[in-house]
Amino acid sequence: MIRDDNMTETVRHDLMRSTNMLSVFNCIRKHGPISKRRIQEETGLSWGAVSTFSADLLERGIISETGRVDTGSRRSATAFDINLENNLIIGIDTNVIGMTGVIIDLKSRVKTKIHQELVSNHISELLEQMKGIIRLLMTEVSDRSVIKGIGVAFPGHVDTERGVSVLARQFCSLEPLDICGILKGEFGLPVVIEHDPNCCALSEQLFGAGQGLTNLLYVRLSRGIGMGIILGGEIYHGFAGATGEIGHITMDPDGGPCYCGNNGCLEIYASSEAVLSRCEQAARMGDAPRLAELLARGEPLTLETAEKAAAAGDGAVYDFFYRAADYAGLAVSAAINLLDPQAVILGGEMPDVKEPFYRHLREVIDRRVWNRRSIDIRVSHLGRSSAAIGAASLFIQQAFFSAVGPDAS
Amino acid sequence: MIRDDNMTETVRHDLMRSTNMLSVFNCIRKHGPISKRRIQEETGLSWGAVSTFSADLLERGIISETGRVDTGSRRSATAFDINLENNLIIGIDTNVIGMTGVIIDLKSRVKTKIHQELVSNHISELLEQMKGIIRLLMTEVSDRSVIKGIGVAFPGHVDTERGVSVLARQFCSLEPLDICGILKGEFGLPVVIEHDPNCCALSEQLFGAGQGLTNLLYVRLSRGIGMGIILGGEIYHGFAGATGEIGHITMDPDGGPCYCGNNGCLEIYASSEAVLSRCEQAARMGDAPRLAELLARGEPLTLETAEKAAAAGDGAVYDFFYRAADYAGLAVSAAINLLDPQAVILGGEMPDVKEPFYRHLREVIDRRVWNRRSIDIRVSHLGRSSAAIGAASLFIQQAFFSAVGPDAS
Repeated sequence: MIRDDNMTETVRHDLMRSTNMLSVFNCIRKHGPISKRRIQEETGLSWGAVSTFSADLLERGIISETGRVDTGSRRSATAFDINLENNLIIGIDTNVIGMTGVIIDLKSRVKTKIHQELVSNHISELLEQMKGIIRLLMTEVSDRSVIKGIGVAFPGHVDTERGVSVLARQFCSLEPLDICGILKGEFGLPVVIEHDPNCCALSEQLFGAGQGLTNLLYVRLSRGIGMGIILGGEIYHGFAGATGEIGHITMDPDGGPCYCGNNGCLEIYASSEAVLSRCEQAARMGDAPRLAELLARGEPLTLETAEKAAAAGDGAVYDFFYRAADYAGLAVSAAINLLDPQAVILGGEMPDVKEPFYRHLREVIDRRVWNRRSIDIRVSHLGRSSAAIGAASLFIQQAFFSAVGPDAS
Repeated sequence: MIRDDNMTETVRHDLMRSTNMLSVFNCIRKHGPISKRRIQEETGLSWGAVSTFSADLLERGIISETGRVDTGSRRSATAFDINLENNLIIGIDTNVIGMTGVIIDLKSRVKTKIHQELVSNHISELLEQMKGIIRLLMTEVSDRSVIKGIGVAFPGHVDTERGVSVLARQFCSLEPLDICGILKGEFGLPVVIEHDPNCCALSEQLFGAGQGLTNLLYVRLSRGIGMGIILGGEIYHGFAGATGEIGHITMDPDGGPCYCGNNGCLEIYASSEAVLSRCEQAARMGDAPRLAELLARGEPLTLETAEKAAAAGDGAVYDFFYRAADYAGLAVSAAINLLDPQAVILGGEMPDVKEPFYRHLREVIDRRVWNRRSIDIRVSHLGRSSAAIGAASLFIQQAFFSAVGPDAS
């Protein structure tokens, strides 16, 4: 993490040690089964360092010897791979679209997945729902001791260092809430928490559209609009953990009210909720006859239905998407002009609406980026479990070693 | 620098070495005369490391022993301080306001300063003017061998790694231009180049309003509008070196044309040039009678004159400033909402216009920051030499050690 302390002045030994340990682990995760010699080539570490770290990982039961691999020379070599059976992590994502829980292994492969609608928009009931999903996930595992920890993706303002939700207005949570402490108390497992778009950004970087990139913006265009920033290969947290609030930059100072307490925010123009609410009103007022017809036939009010109505000739519906793309395009190009990322990954359901939304969004971005430079824009193909998997993956990177280390409680 | 390579995966030994060397150097620069023991306390380095690096700095003539300091214990200790006489750096800043050249010592103290109006807006003539200023600065130094290098602050799109101006539309420079190579060829000195708002940001961090901060945004509100970003203590360059283009984010998609080739950019509403051009037109059209009177009396068309006219009752002039503050406030708060900086430093001449501009700018920022959090906003007190001093200071951090090291040419 890029943090605001004096670490840049003096690169500390323990940081280097844990960075290098993670580097060996990630190399085995990616390439295993793999020989020590190849780990050395891939990581650039010394032979001694690779030996020390792999011995440590073996001792903690994180990796195991998996026989020998052909090295191309006369002798074969011992190969290491991740010990997948005995180390599972839970990830849980709570956002306005619903709650998703997963169990992943150390290669971030999903073993079990649960998705539920939110039972309420109140934090106390949501906390109970979270606990319920975690309990449900645990019943899928015969030996609970293989579950090493929990990663939580949460919206609003999250303080990752203290493990606290500072503010989640959408869930009527206006006071700091020690979510990590509460879940740790309930399940006796270590817990990490992260802002949900950051979890999605991490997932994209690890196994999505951003693989191999060290500098990217992930923008979730969904019922809410948020952004995760990865710089120098790590999640960027800013000074107070309140980064990426692209959904609440002011697009029109005279615009309507937003739930955040301000007005004219991007979310009130470009979120799926904003677009669908305008569509619904237009259908009701007779301005979107095709949509009214589809709804009357029992189709649900979804982006797909609205897209169909626009394609069938509902100009008003088309315009709502077009206008949403206008605003989203201006906001995304502003972020590009400030941050000059290697790539932008667009997630959420809105980019799936190709014709009236995505095509125009791309036009606006291409037009509004400084000097009309060509920018690498990608669409996410990870599904709605992305944030939950990202949160669990973050646990692996941040807390897993100490959870299974000699100092584990 | 936060750069997009694989360095985060494996912290390299040589990076650690140069980081630690710079850390010892900066400590002596800040606290000298200082004992080795106190250097150790300040930097957190080992006794062995402090001894090695200080011996190296001594050998290169960068520091010298300056007698003994009281340690509070029975024995006094040898003290080190920067060798100020024999190491001078030239900094030169070229921007639409004019050209500024400085000579600084290793404590970034200005020894000589030259400011000239631009002779032209064409790059070839500006290059000659730059060379002329550098020659003029050199005549101020009796022994030219004490000048160790040149730091260049330049607008537009700068590729710091290649030492090239990629694009500077304001100077009719549309092709990459090897400014570092040209100046090195002319003067036989190593040269570094940096985007001018980044140089200002660095100056603020080193000796301005941002001292001690490791995460800040610097916004220059002047004839042009630009932003420098410092994250994790270092200048943030993004992927292609095109960061901080806050002056060219689109504020109104239907707005007028900007010299950058786009339309509706922040600069066309909130730059001093934009405001003064509107004021001048209003005076001419009879809409700003106080301003017209002041101009008729021979006062120059400056921000001070316009401010006076607004104070005397010219509503139109007041409105131009107010509207500029509206737009600038929206853009700055958008940057805050994305990046969550520790502080924002406002530079350039516009913030000096207190009543119609700065007060309203603050109101807009306070209002438009997500969750109306309190943000640390500061006004720069460094003068117009800030970018030139920053560029020369950057040379000290980036190129000085190799310029005076055993590998110096």
